[in-house]
Amino acid sequence: MKKITVIGAGYMGSAITYPLSDNNFDVSLCGTWLDDEIISSSKASIHPKLKKPINKNVKLFYWTEIDKALMDSEIIFIGVTSEGFIEIFKKILENIKKECTFLTLTKGFIKYKNKIYRISEIAETLFKDKFKNIIFKWCSIGGPVKAVELANFIPTVSIYGINNESLRNLAISFSTDYYEVFTISDFKGVEISSALKNIYSASIGIIDGLYINDNKDSYHNFSSWIFSQAIKEMAKISVVFGASEKTVFDFAGIGDLYVTSQSGRNRRLGELIGKGFKADEAYNLMLKEGEVAEGFNTLKLGFKWIKDKNKDLLIKLPLLQALYNIITENSNPYYLLKSLFKKI
Amino acid sequence: MKKITVIGAGYMGSAITYPLSDNNFDVSLCGTWLDDEIISSSKASIHPKLKKPINKNVKLFYWTEIDKALMDSEIIFIGVTSEGFIEIFKKILENIKKECTFLTLTKGFIKYKNKIYRISEIAETLFKDKFKNIIFKWCSIGGPVKAVELANFIPTVSIYGINNESLRNLAISFSTDYYEVFTISDFKGVEISSALKNIYSASIGIIDGLYINDNKDSYHNFSSWIFSQAIKEMAKISVVFGASEKTVFDFAGIGDLYVTSQSGRNRRLGELIGKGFKADEAYNLMLKEGEVAEGFNTLKLGFKWIKDKNKDLLIKLPLLQALYNIITENSNPYYLLKSLFKKI
Repeated sequence: MKKITVIGAGYMGSAITYPLSDNNFDVSLCGTWLDDEIISSSKASIHPKLKKPINKNVKLFYWTEIDKALMDSEIIFIGVTSEGFIEIFKKILENIKKECTFLTLTKGFIKYKNKIYRISEIAETLFKDKFKNIIFKWCSIGGPVKAVELANFIPTVSIYGINNESLRNLAISFSTDYYEVFTISDFKGVEISSALKNIYSASIGIIDGLYINDNKDSYHNFSSWIFSQAIKEMAKISVVFGASEKTVFDFAGIGDLYVTSQSGRNRRLGELIGKGFKADEAYNLMLKEGEVAEGFNTLKLGFKWIKDKNKDLLIKLPLLQALYNIITENSNPYYLLKSLFKKI
Repeated sequence: MKKITVIGAGYMGSAITYPLSDNNFDVSLCGTWLDDEIISSSKASIHPKLKKPINKNVKLFYWTEIDKALMDSEIIFIGVTSEGFIEIFKKILENIKKECTFLTLTKGFIKYKNKIYRISEIAETLFKDKFKNIIFKWCSIGGPVKAVELANFIPTVSIYGINNESLRNLAISFSTDYYEVFTISDFKGVEISSALKNIYSASIGIIDGLYINDNKDSYHNFSSWIFSQAIKEMAKISVVFGASEKTVFDFAGIGDLYVTSQSGRNRRLGELIGKGFKADEAYNLMLKEGEVAEGFNTLKLGFKWIKDKNKDLLIKLPLLQALYNIITENSNPYYLLKSLFKKI
């Protein structure tokens, strides 16, 4: 029975243990330094975020036990926030001795030595520093997967972007009767869509917030062209960065933006902004409740990432520009989003 | 001031009079034989479906006055159901004497002499029977436009698929500060997307119905991959019928499926089926309330339309097949939709 270690006991890291352990892999779940309470609670009774017990055949570890959690493991899932990724990935590298496969649930961009990167770029650089002649095996996991729903066995599809053909069968073997894994080679595309949907879903949330404030429940003409525009911009960005627009027009893009726009933390960040909160107030309010709206930082990093690579592209991304102005300058969201339809 | 006549005083025909009359066109709204009460009510006070008065500069006509409504009009909007289209279009042709432009809000497929057609195909045939040497000028209107929201000035985008370059400026001149018109030449694509979204949105409704019945509010992983699959199938169908998949990946496809999946009659038809009603029970229940869920008949016609043209294509449309079985054979919707992810 193959051993799998999942690092990060937040929503996604914990939820993925259900299909993995239901497939009888030998699964270890190791929290980060922020997850001690989650691990304690999960050992005693239930996972406090998922509100249910972790499967009994999953071994639970605290951050300080990461060496034990990773021992003899060749398949490593990473389910931490993008902010913590570098530190945690370095720690993982310290604790492995041989060829491993990394599958990451982390979404977003990473700032490293004053430049912005996709997560897999940083991971590969760090990996090659230690393992010069070993193949870097990487999978970016995307698609419409809300962790709580996966943990409750709602029929779920996920898309695994793999950088090496040898990962295809492994990925497919994680499928269950409630979790279906599809694989594609465009791991960059999956990575980019996963990051961008956290940004763009905030725009749907903003419209929800604007109209909920007005006591209106019928305003989907507005959110629909914004949704459609978001997909178009995601496709444009993907192509410029060497990924395929096909990936956007599939589960990784349309599917994931849809689920994130229906519910989730980044939609809620937008909703609070639509209701009148300044962006940083909204972000901090959620943080106090223990929820990280990653789209807030992903937008700032993503905007710079695009600007550094291809400044002219920004002109073709009026929705992204509007969101950037709303988030960084607290510009009027109704006016900015509405006036967009004259610019697209 | 150009004269525009809108035929059909249901939701969409009536709603389109707001941007048209706000642009100071000379607008006449003529009900069908089913709309007498709507016209009476609108003359006296408010439009009973839109729950607000029609603009004062719009002239209102009963079906029996169609000759007066069409007099001197060269721009004709058609906002009737697909079931009534042929009879009404024939009546329009009887009452016009010269070159006209037709802009249609009707969505769906039409059965004519035992074969299934797109609406514009039938319209062109009927038109050419009468006006042999006159250019057939046609526009299929699509995009995410819920009529009640348009009538309430929610920022709305619409896409006008035009078959003749001369219509471009006319279409754009309908824009207001709450209604933005975009034009494309792929009128076939707009027509196909508009029909198909009424079919596929029922699948999102079914999932809503299944989980509302279970008192669950978090099930969007499921609806998201179904939404994404719907777009993929719409793109496949469009290409086979000579339209562009780009049209699907834009306001006419993604945008319109999104709004129709959030609210609207075809989503509701699906919801009732998800709650346990048989498809025809659900359709008739809505009919009693005065609401026509067009997707019900569009699915039956659309399925045959595809089958006649290209039977092999159906194999690549597992969601459409599942919907067809649910609607025509009352097959178990949960089982059929869930098991789809093994077939896509």
